[in-house]
Amino acid sequence: MSSSRLDIVAIGDAIVDVIATCDDSFLEARGFEKGTMRLLSPAEAADLYDAIGPAREISGGSAANSMAGAAALGLKAAFVGQVADDQLGSIFAHDMRALGVRFDTAPIAAPPPTGVCLILVTPDAQRTMSTCPAASHELTAAALDAELIRSAEVTFLEGYLWGPERPREAMLQAARIARSAGRTVAFTLSESLCIGDRREGVLGMVEAGLVDILFGNEHEVRHLTGCEAVPDCIEALSGKVGTLVMTRGAEGSIASQGGERADIPAAPVGKVVDTTGAGDLFAAGFLAARLRGRGLESCLQAGALAAAEIISHFGARPEVDLRRVVNL
Amino acid sequence: MSSSRLDIVAIGDAIVDVIATCDDSFLEARGFEKGTMRLLSPAEAADLYDAIGPAREISGGSAANSMAGAAALGLKAAFVGQVADDQLGSIFAHDMRALGVRFDTAPIAAPPPTGVCLILVTPDAQRTMSTCPAASHELTAAALDAELIRSAEVTFLEGYLWGPERPREAMLQAARIARSAGRTVAFTLSESLCIGDRREGVLGMVEAGLVDILFGNEHEVRHLTGCEAVPDCIEALSGKVGTLVMTRGAEGSIASQGGERADIPAAPVGKVVDTTGAGDLFAAGFLAARLRGRGLESCLQAGALAAAEIISHFGARPEVDLRRVVNL
Repeated sequence: MSSSRLDIVAIGDAIVDVIATCDDSFLEARGFEKGTMRLLSPAEAADLYDAIGPAREISGGSAANSMAGAAALGLKAAFVGQVADDQLGSIFAHDMRALGVRFDTAPIAAPPPTGVCLILVTPDAQRTMSTCPAASHELTAAALDAELIRSAEVTFLEGYLWGPERPREAMLQAARIARSAGRTVAFTLSESLCIGDRREGVLGMVEAGLVDILFGNEHEVRHLTGCEAVPDCIEALSGKVGTLVMTRGAEGSIASQGGERADIPAAPVGKVVDTTGAGDLFAAGFLAARLRGRGLESCLQAGALAAAEIISHFGARPEVDLRRVVNL
Repeated sequence: MSSSRLDIVAIGDAIVDVIATCDDSFLEARGFEKGTMRLLSPAEAADLYDAIGPAREISGGSAANSMAGAAALGLKAAFVGQVADDQLGSIFAHDMRALGVRFDTAPIAAPPPTGVCLILVTPDAQRTMSTCPAASHELTAAALDAELIRSAEVTFLEGYLWGPERPREAMLQAARIARSAGRTVAFTLSESLCIGDRREGVLGMVEAGLVDILFGNEHEVRHLTGCEAVPDCIEALSGKVGTLVMTRGAEGSIASQGGERADIPAAPVGKVVDTTGAGDLFAAGFLAARLRGRGLESCLQAGALAAAEIISHFGARPEVDLRRVVNL
């Protein structure tokens, strides 16, 4: 691979996480279902922010977290996502570039401001997310650099950004550019799959054969396929995606690729502090191993190790040298 | 104490910390002396920010950290400090109020923006700080509410904010208001003591008898007094301040009050991660115990326990329920 080539480019939400702890009773009083994600308007986000405890701010965004992990694992990575020209936008851009992730999307003038995700972490380390995407959903196809996409081995698309029309169009266009250049397209499912007609849209893209690698946790894969049993989920997607990667939390993970199947337990963690970003870093580890030519089981193991690091502390960005954790 | 009375009000820098890790070689290459604090212009801060790794943002400011600790320990606390009307200013205000600290200082229109402190933490848990105070140094006496100050048992003044003329005037005015209402004035020394004629100014205030309780680490107290040996430092300040509290890092702490003296070891810590805020939380613990009528040694112990919690994680704001750590 020449030095100008990229390993991976992602398109996703450009979000700063606002992370606070709370008790279960706080979630109950607000009617929040633990472990889920909801979308908030700016006014609703301001109201919730007033009610939560002191917070720490750490750059986030699902695919952006994956690119942070990919770069930390030594990949040449780029990210496309929309921030505003404000302080949180500068923080997001800094944190991407400080990891060596190429991030060229020009900020838009606020308002809307840079998107935030208010993450409430309960004592059981579960995260309950309230996202106010704001500027992040203003991404348009104009932000795409076709040459950049063609130069990347993998184009990685984020399910959370799949909903609003313009970002979805941008992602579809990116997928087509990548495919016509003979590249790999990966898609990561998200909880927002259950909003409106998003499921049908993702299913349509999958059935059109546009997705080479599909990531999702078991709930998301069940929701997408409409199947309950894991073998049925795999069967439903076989022949439609090249590789299916399904995470199952503490139960481990499964991958299916053609006739091949791998199934591994979760990596051990001393103390689980905050599960935010587990799936994002799993995808980063899996893809880093795959791009280095590893077999299916080895890719799952790399994903599990990267996920284990991220859930051992607050925030969805690596805190240690991931290359020491994931030996590739 | 009636419900409308305050235990403590502090005047200090209103700052958001930007915390990144680095190796010793990074500090050396930049000519930074480890463990120190320097003041940066906005351009210098932008240059340094571009060079540092991914960061997390957590509200900070020396006296503000102390008030966060005081409120977490159950005190009725207020804070006076200047932020700008921008995203970091909103974060600072949120984090104060979320802890129950009264914070009424109206934000000013940016520029200058809300102040930041770029904190580089080395693997030995030492912090090296580069502060860009920006809006924080725009504080004027107009921000003072004389009734609020008169209502507080203790008025707590921050040495870092002592330099610029207008905030210094505001602090002197607050000290006079507190004194004329028969209240206690506490002052916390800072590394910025070595800038310009600040030492002379602080010494003048001490010699004028305006300071009832003086906090400082041994380096700061040595610099203030010009004495080397600890007994000489205590001797130099005896009769000038009512209570002298000197922290000595891993060596423990000493307090001197009239003819009384207490000397305790540091509280044990599992793993020291980031020493930022150790002195700030020590002061919070000491004052919380004092306001509950504890003896000198018991006050030192409360300070040591609060400091031990804060250095066990990144950031200078408590992460656990401090009342479980410091049993008052």
